[in-house]
Amino acid sequence: MNQDTICAIATAQGGTIGLIRVSGSGAINIAGNLFVPAGNNKNLKNQKPYTLTFGRIFSGEEMIDEVLVSLFRSPHSYTGEDSVEITCHGSPYIMQQIMQLLIANGCRVARPGEYTQRAFLNGKMDLSQAEAVADLIASSSASMHHLAMTQMRGGFSKELNNLRVRLLNFTSLIELELDFSEDDVEFADRNELCLLADEIESIISRLVHSFSTGNVIKNGIPVAIVGKTNVGKSTLLNVLLNEEKAIVSPVHGTTRDVIEDTVNLGGVIFRFMDTAGIRETGDEVENLGVERTFQKMDQAEIILWMVDATNNVRKQLEEFSNKILLRSGKKQVIWVFNKTDRLSDSQKEELTSLLAAYKNKDTNGIDSIFISAKQRIGIELLQQKLVNSTYLPAVTPNDVIVTNVRHYEALTHAWDSIRRVREGLQTHVSGDFLSQDIRECMFHLGDIVGEVTNEMVLENVFGKFCIGK
Amino acid sequence: MNQDTICAIATAQGGTIGLIRVSGSGAINIAGNLFVPAGNNKNLKNQKPYTLTFGRIFSGEEMIDEVLVSLFRSPHSYTGEDSVEITCHGSPYIMQQIMQLLIANGCRVARPGEYTQRAFLNGKMDLSQAEAVADLIASSSASMHHLAMTQMRGGFSKELNNLRVRLLNFTSLIELELDFSEDDVEFADRNELCLLADEIESIISRLVHSFSTGNVIKNGIPVAIVGKTNVGKSTLLNVLLNEEKAIVSPVHGTTRDVIEDTVNLGGVIFRFMDTAGIRETGDEVENLGVERTFQKMDQAEIILWMVDATNNVRKQLEEFSNKILLRSGKKQVIWVFNKTDRLSDSQKEELTSLLAAYKNKDTNGIDSIFISAKQRIGIELLQQKLVNSTYLPAVTPNDVIVTNVRHYEALTHAWDSIRRVREGLQTHVSGDFLSQDIRECMFHLGDIVGEVTNEMVLENVFGKFCIGK
Repeated sequence: MNQDTICAIATAQGGTIGLIRVSGSGAINIAGNLFVPAGNNKNLKNQKPYTLTFGRIFSGEEMIDEVLVSLFRSPHSYTGEDSVEITCHGSPYIMQQIMQLLIANGCRVARPGEYTQRAFLNGKMDLSQAEAVADLIASSSASMHHLAMTQMRGGFSKELNNLRVRLLNFTSLIELELDFSEDDVEFADRNELCLLADEIESIISRLVHSFSTGNVIKNGIPVAIVGKTNVGKSTLLNVLLNEEKAIVSPVHGTTRDVIEDTVNLGGVIFRFMDTAGIRETGDEVENLGVERTFQKMDQAEIILWMVDATNNVRKQLEEFSNKILLRSGKKQVIWVFNKTDRLSDSQKEELTSLLAAYKNKDTNGIDSIFISAKQRIGIELLQQKLVNSTYLPAVTPNDVIVTNVRHYEALTHAWDSIRRVREGLQTHVSGDFLSQDIRECMFHLGDIVGEVTNEMVLENVFGKFCIGK
Repeated sequence: MNQDTICAIATAQGGTIGLIRVSGSGAINIAGNLFVPAGNNKNLKNQKPYTLTFGRIFSGEEMIDEVLVSLFRSPHSYTGEDSVEITCHGSPYIMQQIMQLLIANGCRVARPGEYTQRAFLNGKMDLSQAEAVADLIASSSASMHHLAMTQMRGGFSKELNNLRVRLLNFTSLIELELDFSEDDVEFADRNELCLLADEIESIISRLVHSFSTGNVIKNGIPVAIVGKTNVGKSTLLNVLLNEEKAIVSPVHGTTRDVIEDTVNLGGVIFRFMDTAGIRETGDEVENLGVERTFQKMDQAEIILWMVDATNNVRKQLEEFSNKILLRSGKKQVIWVFNKTDRLSDSQKEELTSLLAAYKNKDTNGIDSIFISAKQRIGIELLQQKLVNSTYLPAVTPNDVIVTNVRHYEALTHAWDSIRRVREGLQTHVSGDFLSQDIRECMFHLGDIVGEVTNEMVLENVFGKFCIGK
């Protein structure tokens, strides 16, 4: 499999410049077949590594584009193989033509993540570093970037290696006893072993628990914007996202699809979800929408219940108590009173006292805010409330945070094993059982960096990558 | 203005790889300030042109990314200036950080098209070639690509230069007479001049007329899909576009926005426009939609009137005669009978005879087809009908086709001037008037390649480019 020369478009559609990557033993020859360097007597095959060559790509007689070709020779490339990168104009037609020419000359289209998979297989990085590449590409905030970069630079791998060394020392002592089992000696002081197991367990436990932080940093804190139809949910979403994602119209029930996008507020990523309005409706499409609203609410950490402050507030608050309160569970809720720019001062006072009167034991913890989405009044305060409402433990530069579900699962298994070791020490089980649990713990940690990983896991990991990486 | 060092992201959001271009006299120094090459004693400033250097970009202590930096030295670069291209991971965060670092170190964000504008100002290409770069990037079909490439390679410029040389010879003869005007000589044989003016006019006229072809090749043949609600317009659009662009639902009036996209059928680009269904409705959003349907119909060259074959066909054909026929003018119309998979054979026969009976002098030229959009029956035949219905003159590789509105306008002015010359020759106006009209014709032709173009025109031309080119 690793013998094929692969090619892929590595840039997104719609840019000025397109980049096509070719990697494998045939990369330089194949690219050389379709590329005619500018200038006399030049031949791509004779160019030095880490050089750029300007020239033209032809399909028979027809010139496809003027391009720059970068050349890398094994092992000094991203994949560790001979590689060529073709920088062309970002036209979809040109990129397709060049891809077709490469394929006609013997390349195969790369599978998702195959470049990084080859880098892993050629020993350029371990598996958790490879996975960090995908996270790095997707990173859209400083904290996401920091986590991915730390992992890619091997911070996480180092922490895991430390753990594995300690586990190895641990089990070596126990296994040494097994060799002398007939003599019934104890080389390893059981009390010291208990302390060591405690320490290892606490490190693994910290890593497991860091996952919820990592998940929020990576995917954003989900916020559902919920309310009756026509209270201004889409308008608020637009204002928060600062662009026109949702159609806004004064007709009830305009938003049918849940539209969502992320925004970086004060360094924290929030994922806002606009939802269809809650109302009884005979409209088939909309009923589907309302059902999805509840699903989104279940996924959210924060719920904004939007109320049209100009239109029967009492009924909307009752609607909240009847339909939303139970579904909202222990989630953070903020009542957002919209259209308050249309209220007179006395109406605002009235609303404030209504609100105070309406608070009961169930709604006591709920924060509320007056805004006008249309006039952009109160938006900054709302954003501030969101940032403040969020529990995000401070992450120091040296903290290792788990962001990957696969790592989380492996760590959970490792945790189970090390807990069994600690219990075994307390109940004085025999050394071979202890040793087996320790080996199992090491196996799961090794899984994360790819030392013991099988083909299927690799396919699963790299299959989630985008093509071209 | 040309002293600034400029920077821009040249790749689209969402790719694996991002490319940032830096150009200007400070490019190498500025990039060198934030970039730390891998390996000992390396310094970007000492690298040779057309080389790649691997290393890291830092913001203070924080590593932003591992990147490859390409280096070009004036005049051997796209802009003709010192240039650097930074290939980084395609993360939005990373690209923003690198841009901020470049700006903090003295770069300015490039205006749209500023790279190509600098290439033009530094004599790397003429204006019509520069404009072809934008077309090349946008090209999504073989014919678009061919036109843009011909123009970028200077085919159009060559044709214009030929014309200008002939005009110059023409006017030289006349202006020579003016020098001897007191002697009342005629160096230029008036009959020969007439023939020459005829020839020049016919060349310009051909170029002017090529614009309609060029426009269709560049923007696609507009096809409006029109019909009553729920006849399956969105489903047909999805099938034609081969993806899920429009929401499809069995509820009447689901499509509210006109959704359009282009598809390449047999080398010809078609631009399909889905429209809201025609019906009387009290729904505010939908009435807007119906109005837009008529606007789109006016823009279309081909109208597909879709009929639900299972539901009162006669009424839908009457609807066509009452509402659509007049608005359709001389446009090509195809009646598309959808859902025919649900008809029995006898029902199909019935429909065929109804259709024959319904043809009258107004609807006689209308083609019709039975399809099922949902079952994908008859779609290929429909595509074939579209391709056949299209009048596209054959374009030979050497034909110069005008695709640019600015060129079209300049050519129209040139045509006016050369017609005045020909009329002047016939009515024996004096040489200085002739000469003035010829100079005017040359001026307009020179405008196309940018020889006489003023600042405002340049801003207009390059302002339409994307940033990073």
